[in-house]
Amino acid sequence: MIILNGGSSSGKSGIVRCLQEVLPDPWLAFGCDSFVDALPARLQTSDEGITFDADGGVSVGAGFRELEAAWIEGVVAMARAGARIVIDEVFLGGAESQRRWNKALDGLEVLWVGVRCESAVAAGREIARGDRTPGMAAAQADLVHEGVSYDLEVDTTHSESLVCARTIADRIADRIG
Amino acid sequence: MIILNGGSSSGKSGIVRCLQEVLPDPWLAFGCDSFVDALPARLQTSDEGITFDADGGVSVGAGFRELEAAWIEGVVAMARAGARIVIDEVFLGGAESQRRWNKALDGLEVLWVGVRCESAVAAGREIARGDRTPGMAAAQADLVHEGVSYDLEVDTTHSESLVCARTIADRIADRIG
Amino acid sequence: MIILNGGSSSGKSGIVRCLQEVLPDPWLAFGCDSFVDALPARLQTSDEGITFDADGGVSVGAGFRELEAAWIEGVVAMARAGARIVIDEVFLGGAESQRRWNKALDGLEVLWVGVRCESAVAAGREIARGDRTPGMAAAQADLVHEGVSYDLEVDTTHSESLVCARTIADRIADRIG
Amino acid sequence: MIILNGGSSSGKSGIVRCLQEVLPDPWLAFGCDSFVDALPARLQTSDEGITFDADGGVSVGAGFRELEAAWIEGVVAMARAGARIVIDEVFLGGAESQRRWNKALDGLEVLWVGVRCESAVAAGREIARGDRTPGMAAAQADLVHEGVSYDLEVDTTHSESLVCARTIADRIADRIG
Repeated sequence: MIILNGGSSSGKSGIVRCLQEVLPDPWLAFGCDSFVDALPARLQTSDEGITFDADGGVSVGAGFRELEAAWIEGVVAMARAGARIVIDEVFLGGAESQRRWNKALDGLEVLWVGVRCESAVAAGREIARGDRTPGMAAAQADLVHEGVSYDLEVDTTHSESLVCARTIADRIADRIG
Repeated sequence: MIILNGGSSSGKSGIVRCLQEVLPDPWLAFGCDSFVDALPARLQTSDEGITFDADGGVSVGAGFRELEAAWIEGVVAMARAGARIVIDEVFLGGAESQRRWNKALDGLEVLWVGVRCESAVAAGREIARGDRTPGMAAAQADLVHEGVSYDLEVDTTHSESLVCARTIADRIADRIG
Repeated sequence: MIILNGGSSSGKSGIVRCLQEVLPDPWLAFGCDSFVDALPARLQTSDEGITFDADGGVSVGAGFRELEAAWIEGVVAMARAGARIVIDEVFLGGAESQRRWNKALDGLEVLWVGVRCESAVAAGREIARGDRTPGMAAAQADLVHEGVSYDLEVDTTHSESLVCARTIADRIADRIG
Repeated sequence: MIILNGGSSSGKSGIVRCLQEVLPDPWLAFGCDSFVDALPARLQTSDEGITFDADGGVSVGAGFRELEAAWIEGVVAMARAGARIVIDEVFLGGAESQRRWNKALDGLEVLWVGVRCESAVAAGREIARGDRTPGMAAAQADLVHEGVSYDLEVDTTHSESLVCARTIADRIADRIG
């Protein structure tokens, strides 16, 4: 299992698609976006669920956390059942978010990858994408890494997604070695 | 857990979104589309993975089945961890597909729902959607129901998605009763 | 040129895709959605541009109207240059919106089609789609038809998109006759 | 009017969205993608219309060219009617494609911008996007610029979309003076 953590517009999804291409075995990709898509529409805009503020802030409520815990359990179960899984996450709670995953992983081997991107560059890419609330990139660029431990960090500020993916794939090859 | 099975363009996704709206508790929605999205791009167009033929036929290979089995295990684990889950599926293998789920469910309570739609009507809706390979609706309309057992069947030929969802929600309320 | 007018979730886009399929010649499809997509992101959420209220109301400002007038001129020019064009529109201003088109059309032959759908049914389909602000369907169901004149009206409450499209295509065949 | 020409995955759309953000006046954005979306589904996969080969090649037929000519006329008419328009194009025919636009422009002032990206980098971004036929980026990287004249060229290989957009916006400001 590979878990990527990075702020909005840091380039996680692009790295994931490149990883699926360069890794010799087939890997399933899930992430916070696929989880949010699975929520009822009413939880996608409520205090109980997840809210996206006009200034780029994101808050999640108790209902969100409860379902997320079950989702994490399920994703880990897929890995235990033999699937290779790559996750892209936005650790709004920093170290506390990583702790939630570690609890569910319960010893399952994971490669933790931090995806960095300079705040100003991520904010520019947010404008170029055009499908994200302006301000999320800047708000999350540092926040999501607070207190989080990684096996490997990549920085998309000056590196292409494919190059970052190859770095990660090399590390996986070393581990399996 | 609720599992809906029906052919392409039979109206499953619309019913799922309405179910998420009318059911009082929050339910997570997953399905064959979210699973296919999680696959590496190269498995989305290969014999090993899934192929969509020009005539609307769909075939899946050994690599697909292997990852799907792990995915099913994981989704069932989410339900065991306390999440309410609604699945929309296309049982290309009919009864054999249902058997695969039943094996993983291992006694977990499920409401099986068949979603029917007259072949000609589904084919018309496939044109109206414009995002599916023409011919899939007709090819799957009857095929996916062969040998499958249901607790409840709905027919979208003359019923709106919301009405079908209410029928299913009433059955859930009776069960929990 | 064919111009369809109807409220949100009344089924216009589905009819347009079916029309493009059943009409023997190739027709280009544009509409208010393709126009809004062409706007700068900042006009998609501002008083100057277009705003979608939480209750389903939609308001447009002076900047929107100015660009829309040029867009209408351009679409009419495509038709004068020989392209067959089908437009799907939401006449928030009712008769006044039709007047704006008529001014630009300046005698160009058009088939005006009203797309009706019972408010409660459109509201249900809005939930089933899941990609529209709840309330738009109900707010627009009658409003957009106020004072508008049609050559033909179709009602999607009990008719499939493909059936409505065939009715419109037959009328086109009669005209060209 | 601004016309950007560049190969698939060279970063045109990102530059367009940034341009719409940094230019003080509102600009409408259209392009070859919005034109292809307007085509009947059957022209999106036929010799008469446009075909995307498995190796990344793209061919267009007579039916496509005829409708495209009318579309170009209409877009130019929008500009003449007072709208500021930015176009992103893929000149599969190189100089001949530019000639088609120049004929319709008939003296209307345009800023021609070439969007370059090294073939290998564009191919990597194509994998990262995951929504384009593999091979298009490499096939088009040089082809689309053959014989085309520009007022300005930008290169996204080592420059962010926002930076390229600012370069273009500065040139526009100079012209308007």
